[in-house]
Amino acid sequence: MKAAVMRDGRLLVDDVDTLPPQPGQLIAEVLACGICGSDLHALTHADQLVEMASAMSADAGPFAPAPMDISRDVVMGHEFSARVIEVGPNVSRCAVGDVVVSLPIVMDAGGIHALGYDNAYPGGFAEQIVLSEALCSKVPNGLDPQLAALTEPMSVGVHAVRKSVVTTKHAAVVLGCGPVGLAVIAALRSSGVETIVASDFSASRRALATDFGATEVTDPALESPFAIWRRIDGRKPLVIFEAVGVPGILESAILEAPRAAQILVVGVCMVADSFRPMIAIGKELNLQFVFGYDPAEFADTLQRIAEGQYPVGQMITATVPLEGVAGAFAALSDPDSQAKILVIPSADTALPTVI
Amino acid sequence: MKAAVMRDGRLLVDDVDTLPPQPGQLIAEVLACGICGSDLHALTHADQLVEMASAMSADAGPFAPAPMDISRDVVMGHEFSARVIEVGPNVSRCAVGDVVVSLPIVMDAGGIHALGYDNAYPGGFAEQIVLSEALCSKVPNGLDPQLAALTEPMSVGVHAVRKSVVTTKHAAVVLGCGPVGLAVIAALRSSGVETIVASDFSASRRALATDFGATEVTDPALESPFAIWRRIDGRKPLVIFEAVGVPGILESAILEAPRAAQILVVGVCMVADSFRPMIAIGKELNLQFVFGYDPAEFADTLQRIAEGQYPVGQMITATVPLEGVAGAFAALSDPDSQAKILVIPSADTALPTVI
Repeated sequence: MKAAVMRDGRLLVDDVDTLPPQPGQLIAEVLACGICGSDLHALTHADQLVEMASAMSADAGPFAPAPMDISRDVVMGHEFSARVIEVGPNVSRCAVGDVVVSLPIVMDAGGIHALGYDNAYPGGFAEQIVLSEALCSKVPNGLDPQLAALTEPMSVGVHAVRKSVVTTKHAAVVLGCGPVGLAVIAALRSSGVETIVASDFSASRRALATDFGATEVTDPALESPFAIWRRIDGRKPLVIFEAVGVPGILESAILEAPRAAQILVVGVCMVADSFRPMIAIGKELNLQFVFGYDPAEFADTLQRIAEGQYPVGQMITATVPLEGVAGAFAALSDPDSQAKILVIPSADTALPTVI
Repeated sequence: MKAAVMRDGRLLVDDVDTLPPQPGQLIAEVLACGICGSDLHALTHADQLVEMASAMSADAGPFAPAPMDISRDVVMGHEFSARVIEVGPNVSRCAVGDVVVSLPIVMDAGGIHALGYDNAYPGGFAEQIVLSEALCSKVPNGLDPQLAALTEPMSVGVHAVRKSVVTTKHAAVVLGCGPVGLAVIAALRSSGVETIVASDFSASRRALATDFGATEVTDPALESPFAIWRRIDGRKPLVIFEAVGVPGILESAILEAPRAAQILVVGVCMVADSFRPMIAIGKELNLQFVFGYDPAEFADTLQRIAEGQYPVGQMITATVPLEGVAGAFAALSDPDSQAKILVIPSADTALPTVI
C-alpha cells in the first residue's frame, strides 16, 4: 500500500507492506488523518520525542510502547478515522464497513505500539491501518469521517480540563489558539466556565477561538489576557491553560498569574525551558502537566463531536493527499494561514497540496 | 537598643531606635532568633528577595507588605521567641512577662510589615521586637524559648505537607535535610506517612533526618532516594518534597519521578532554573510550589513542639550573640557542620561565635 514515510528526517511517498490482522485486530482503510504538532516535532527532533516516550513509560513496565527507532522507516499519523475492510479472529463488535476512530495504540502478542510513532505498524498517513478492536469506537451514523478524525486532538482538551481544578466558579485564560488551545476552549465551554479569555498573535486563530467558545480574545502583543481577566472578572479564581509550548511562555505565565492559580501545561515544549522558581513559590502556584487522555475521555469526545457541540469543521484549513503531506508539514509552520490539515489517503493526487 | 544590622550588603552590630507600642502592639525582649536560608540569600541577593516579595504580593492589595528598601538599614530575623516587656493600648490577651512567638508580621495603621525584611520595624536579630498581639501565640509553660523559636521554620514543613496530596497511603521522598527538609520530614511523620526516604550529601544532616522521622536516608551520590523507594515501597504513590533549592534539582526530580507524582517545591531557588517540560508532560507530573504557612498551622506547630512531637533541639547546632551573627552566616555555608544557628541577643558577647 501507499504511505507517507518518514525516512532520514524527510517525508516521501513509498509502498509499504500491508499486515494481516492478528486476533483482536482489524484492518481499516484510512478516511482522514490530521497532522499534529508532535508530528512536526518528530520530523525535525525525533530524538527528543523518543526521550519523551521513554519518560512517559517510566514505571509502566510492559504497558509502555517500545520507542520508535528513527533510523528505520516510520509512518506517522495518529488522528484518524477509518473504514473497516477486514476483521481478524476474535473480533465481534466491529464489522466490515464500520467507520471507526481509535486511540492511537495497537496491541499484539508482543506488547503495545504507539500508532504513528512505531516501526512495526504504520500510522494514519497510509492507505490502511491496523487497529485493536478493544480501542475502537464506532463513529455514529451521519458524522462526517473528517470531523470524526478530530476526536483525538479534541480529547486532549477534554483531558486537560478534567485534570484541572476548574469549575463553573473559575475563570480561565487560554494561552495559544492552535488546535490544542481550541480543544481546551471547547472543553471549558462544555464544562460551563463562563469567562474564557484566549490569546494568540494570529487573527485567524483568535476568530476560531471565538467560534470554539472563548468569551474574550486578545492579541497578547496589544493586551495581556491576564489584564483582561482582571478587568472583567478578576474576582473568580483563575485557571491558566498553556497551549503554546515554546520556551519562555511558562515564565511569562508564572509572572502574570495571580496568587494560588493553577497552570495546566498542555503545550509540548520539546526543549529545555527556564523559569524562576522563587516567583512560583511566592505565589504558591500549581503546575499540572498533562498529556493525552483516557479511553472514556476519547469516547466522550467523539460523542460531543457527533452531537455538534464542537465546531471542529472550522478548524480544518486544508486537506491533502499522501503526496501533499510533506508540503502540508511546511505549510503548518505558518500559524496564521493553517490550523488543522487533514491527510486524505484516498484523495486524487491532483488535489492541491494545500488549500 | 543593639541590633545586627544589614547595611550595604554587610552585617554589623549597631544601635537602632526602639519604638513605642501602638494600639494592639506589644514590645518584647528577643530570647532567641534562628537564622534562615532566606536571610543568607537576602544578604547576598537582596534584589531577588525584593522581586519575590513583589510577586508574592500580586493581587494582595493592601494586605501585602511593602518590599524593603535595601539601600536603607534592615534588621533581619523572623524565627524568634520573645518575652513581653511592654504592652500598648488595646492589648488584652498578652501581659508583661509572657513568652510568645509570632508570625513574622506586624501591623500598624499604615499596613502590614514583614518582620525581618522591613525598614520600619527591626526583626529578631535585635534586643527588642515590636509584635502585633493578634498574631502572637503564648508559649506553653515549660517549653524552652530556644525550642519555641523553631516554630516558624517547622511551620513551613507542616504547611508544605498540608498543601500536598499526601495521605497515609502515599510514600514520600524528601530531597535535602536542611532545616526545611527536616521540618517536612517531621510533618510527614506526624501525618502517619510510613515510608519517608530522605537524601542529603551531609552525613550529619542524614542523622538528623533519622531523628526527625525519616525511615530511610541516603547519600544521593551513592544511591538515589527514588531507587530506594522503588526497592522498598514502589507500589504506593509517591509525593516528592524538594527542599534543596539549587538550580538543577527540579530537573533531576522530574527525571526520576514516577508517572503522576506530585512534587512539592519547598526549597527556594533564587535564580532562574531550567528543566524540560516535555518530560514532566510525558509523566503528567504535578508541581505544587509552596511558601510560608497560615496562622492555624503556626499555632498547631507550636503545640506539636510543646508536646515533644518534634525533636527540634537536635537541629540547633550553635548559639551566638548579636556580635556573632556575621560569623554565623558564614558558618552556615558549610551544611555538614551546621543546621540551625540561634541568635541570643541577651547572650554575653564572649559567647563563641560558632560552637
